[in-house]
Amino acid sequence: MEHAAIHHQPFSTDAYSYDGRRLHIKIRTKKADVNQIRLIWGDPYETQDGRWPANERQMKKAAATETHDYWFAEVAPPFRRLQYAFVLQSADQEEIFYGSSGVCPYNEKMLETIQSYFKFPFVHEADTFQAPEWVKSTIWYQIFPERFANGREDLSPEAVLPWGSKDPDVNDFFGGDLQGIIDKLDYLEALGVNGIYLTPIFSAPSNHKYDTLDYYSIDPHFGDPELFRALVDQLHQRGMKIMLDAVFNHIGSASPQWQDVVENGERSRYKDWFHIHAFPVEEGHYDTFAFTPTMPKLNTAHPEVQSYLLDIALYWIREFDIDGWRLDVANEVDHAFWKKFRQAVSAEKPDVYILGEIWHSAEPWLRGDEFHAVMNYPFTEPMIEYFADRTISPSQMASRLNAHLMNGMQQVNESMFNLLDSHDTKRLLTRCRHDEKKAQSLLAFMFAQTGSPCIYYGTEIGLDGGNDPLCRKCMVWEEEKQNQGMLKFMKRLIALRKQENALWTYGDLEWNLLDDQSDFISFSRVSDEKKLIFFFNQGSEVRHISLQDVGIEKNKKIYDAWAEESLRHTDAIDIQPGEFFILGVEDAV
Amino acid sequence: MEHAAIHHQPFSTDAYSYDGRRLHIKIRTKKADVNQIRLIWGDPYETQDGRWPANERQMKKAAATETHDYWFAEVAPPFRRLQYAFVLQSADQEEIFYGSSGVCPYNEKMLETIQSYFKFPFVHEADTFQAPEWVKSTIWYQIFPERFANGREDLSPEAVLPWGSKDPDVNDFFGGDLQGIIDKLDYLEALGVNGIYLTPIFSAPSNHKYDTLDYYSIDPHFGDPELFRALVDQLHQRGMKIMLDAVFNHIGSASPQWQDVVENGERSRYKDWFHIHAFPVEEGHYDTFAFTPTMPKLNTAHPEVQSYLLDIALYWIREFDIDGWRLDVANEVDHAFWKKFRQAVSAEKPDVYILGEIWHSAEPWLRGDEFHAVMNYPFTEPMIEYFADRTISPSQMASRLNAHLMNGMQQVNESMFNLLDSHDTKRLLTRCRHDEKKAQSLLAFMFAQTGSPCIYYGTEIGLDGGNDPLCRKCMVWEEEKQNQGMLKFMKRLIALRKQENALWTYGDLEWNLLDDQSDFISFSRVSDEKKLIFFFNQGSEVRHISLQDVGIEKNKKIYDAWAEESLRHTDAIDIQPGEFFILGVEDAV
Repeated sequence: MEHAAIHHQPFSTDAYSYDGRRLHIKIRTKKADVNQIRLIWGDPYETQDGRWPANERQMKKAAATETHDYWFAEVAPPFRRLQYAFVLQSADQEEIFYGSSGVCPYNEKMLETIQSYFKFPFVHEADTFQAPEWVKSTIWYQIFPERFANGREDLSPEAVLPWGSKDPDVNDFFGGDLQGIIDKLDYLEALGVNGIYLTPIFSAPSNHKYDTLDYYSIDPHFGDPELFRALVDQLHQRGMKIMLDAVFNHIGSASPQWQDVVENGERSRYKDWFHIHAFPVEEGHYDTFAFTPTMPKLNTAHPEVQSYLLDIALYWIREFDIDGWRLDVANEVDHAFWKKFRQAVSAEKPDVYILGEIWHSAEPWLRGDEFHAVMNYPFTEPMIEYFADRTISPSQMASRLNAHLMNGMQQVNESMFNLLDSHDTKRLLTRCRHDEKKAQSLLAFMFAQTGSPCIYYGTEIGLDGGNDPLCRKCMVWEEEKQNQGMLKFMKRLIALRKQENALWTYGDLEWNLLDDQSDFISFSRVSDEKKLIFFFNQGSEVRHISLQDVGIEKNKKIYDAWAEESLRHTDAIDIQPGEFFILGVEDAV
Repeated sequence: MEHAAIHHQPFSTDAYSYDGRRLHIKIRTKKADVNQIRLIWGDPYETQDGRWPANERQMKKAAATETHDYWFAEVAPPFRRLQYAFVLQSADQEEIFYGSSGVCPYNEKMLETIQSYFKFPFVHEADTFQAPEWVKSTIWYQIFPERFANGREDLSPEAVLPWGSKDPDVNDFFGGDLQGIIDKLDYLEALGVNGIYLTPIFSAPSNHKYDTLDYYSIDPHFGDPELFRALVDQLHQRGMKIMLDAVFNHIGSASPQWQDVVENGERSRYKDWFHIHAFPVEEGHYDTFAFTPTMPKLNTAHPEVQSYLLDIALYWIREFDIDGWRLDVANEVDHAFWKKFRQAVSAEKPDVYILGEIWHSAEPWLRGDEFHAVMNYPFTEPMIEYFADRTISPSQMASRLNAHLMNGMQQVNESMFNLLDSHDTKRLLTRCRHDEKKAQSLLAFMFAQTGSPCIYYGTEIGLDGGNDPLCRKCMVWEEEKQNQGMLKFMKRLIALRKQENALWTYGDLEWNLLDDQSDFISFSRVSDEKKLIFFFNQGSEVRHISLQDVGIEKNKKIYDAWAEESLRHTDAIDIQPGEFFILGVEDAV
């Protein structure tokens, strides 16, 4: 057994409260090195006849990566206190005890002593990560307002270009606004999405509005407070949620605060609102977002900046009843500030969703006292690299997806914001080299995963585009120019996701087949009542599936979940290259 | 190379801000498996000629355990933003790149792309663990007030027993009080300690006072507010600090709050202050500390309980100017409460030391927003098991000490509360089976480690005692009954620690020799200017050290650091069984 590869980190995503009662325990071993693991557990204070009464539970191999196996068990300690250790057995019958002092050869007497156990001292609901329940059944739709729809031509900037007249340049304006979104709510409702995420709408010079001028006003080219209120009301009437984008890492250089520093230098009352190294505040004399001089970084450790930003966060909740805050460049702002943000926001409206823009693994922001989710780019990448880029194999993709899932708490994964593209990336269709079937397979694959999926405006009608600014093209509204096949596909996928929401949120994911040779993948989402088996054929040959070979018990009802047609156990399916198939399996009634 | 054993956890004690400017980066590999590691690092937004300008730094092998090597590097990124990865080289020249997507074969082109790097997005002082500076030069002395000295016989309980007349039983009283401590301040100052930790002194029925009746009053058998104020004043005049014990996990069943629940049941206004499962509140109907019915657990998630306890924490700081809070059973109280506690206490008096009673590894409490230290029992255990119990070898001890140190941030280790015994364990001398030399070696070994050492009252005069209640014997004040040799030893050790404080706080620890066969250990504490080389002979043979063989450059001044006598390079030392020796090495002036 490879002792050096055994890893369990107490008080981490390896050992956490799932719901204030049940604890989840994970341990990692070298791949295919360990045959079985028993979790030894009990109350740290309990004794029976002078001995510690150890309980045992077999752990389940929950996932594997290219290098590791991950094992899982759930326990609900009766007094909410837990001590635990692991007994690992290798194929050649080596048995070791793994506890807080590391690894040693196992003998039964160890179980009686209270030494060397890991501890989970007390399970507190107050320390348990919890996300708003509504998020788990949300299908998000991301809108870049300047490019979605122009509903009020009178609001458009002077230099506005005719809608969709050209590919966007960095500084172009096309006149999209909030009335445009209101006008298209029937369209969005018919599409089936039930959460709208708007990139920034506050006053700012640019078309993207990430260089905020005034956090308290709607950009005049987008509308005004009344128009925004009408949008929120109409969304809520339709059972849809709205999330705004808060740019708190930096402010626009046109803002009065920064302009005051520019004018008054060291005498400015705002000089401590920023990270200034020398006056006058020329480029290089102050911290910025990236190396962008128009975006001076805010000093979020300063009490005035904190109360300024927190008041903004509460203002839009209190006055307009928004449902979520997406936090721009969230990873470069201090944790101390985000903890205050979370407390203030959750006190104002407990089920506001807080979503951080973080592109890397984000565990410290997802402990329960900062964000509910992050934009799940580390989950995006392996999917894109396999399906679109074809730079990794099915096993490599599964390895990285599994590592990422195993690196998170289950309830975090359940609330995660999954996406394939955004205003900051190439568009999906372009990434897929305009292979529409591939884009559909990717969307189906992503929708079948744990976490709430988001689609970027226009994906549903086949909008394409390279990196920023090309991924910010005007939405196409002429039906004849929309890809109606794609739209039909998206509506069906969204409908299916909603129908299967419980299974796709809480069901286990089991990989059935990762065929690197012929580029064929099968996995199942499984609950007690039901199973959906997915087949993705990314190879160049037709794949023939005999349902008898899939190994489904004869008394189960089976069906084509996409087409909603029942199947017989004697049926066979041919999956064409580039296609996918979803087989439903449930108890016959 | 064993890929499955390579481990680096971003945003953890593997990657943290040491001081708001310098970052510490660690990585773990299988023992003796990797020859060298280069840290690849730079700013995530920087580009030069369209490429990412990667910097490289050799990592240092900082420590080893029985299973792993730990590697370390420090970087100070100029824009306070970092992305990084590792290039590992094995003895047989296998070279791999290890980043956020795991392990892959290395080629130079990887360095140019921005993919797959770990991130430290921004170094914030607000998120950096910092402890009060004074703690690092403190020698703690723990007093169990009921047993230290009786200075006011008029305060003693009715059933008081003559001082030291017998071994203590669980419910005995001997009359120790605060005046007793005041009377012995000259003694403590002469001993050299400069921080006093008192177990609870608030009103409570028991002799240990962990069953608090009233957190706002000094127990009448110990004194009154004026006497306590006098104690604090006199300590401060002598440059000594005082730390009190806060029992916030539970309250005494005699407290008015619990008695109200007992009397009024569900109608009690305090019913939500506790975790009650059924009324009336008989045993088993409510959560307690361990299974102790006289210690009902407080519901620290309740706002009233929070403001009650926080007010107590502030009261003793504001009114009496105490310097530290030791938090009883700290691991069973929720983190959310401790974060509020830290904020409130640090706002009241920024350099109050917050010490948690946690017996296991305690990383989540030591992230910078809860405690400054914990009682370092996981560090105690390997020392005791090697020296006193003789159940582990020198290498096993060093392995566990190293693992523990590598598991923590450096600045946490520097502020840690190190101890060999307490009111909750067997006394050191008893644990050493009354082998006084062994106790001295253990004390010297512990004093030579990073972290502030604490001695439990009486250790310095040879007090012994088994587990509670025997470890709570009355202090012996008759000089002829005190072990004067031990006292002299402790005074010298404390003086030496103070003299070498900078080295023993910030110097590196290097193991020179771990000789499991003959039970001989040597390690050095090293700074740029100076080195102290320790030799511990726990074997049965005299150990002969030729100073020439130790490999000290000829131009260095060398000396016996304990005796403060200079040595010649041609000298030799004989270390008797059970003895230790400290060799000083510094630049000749």
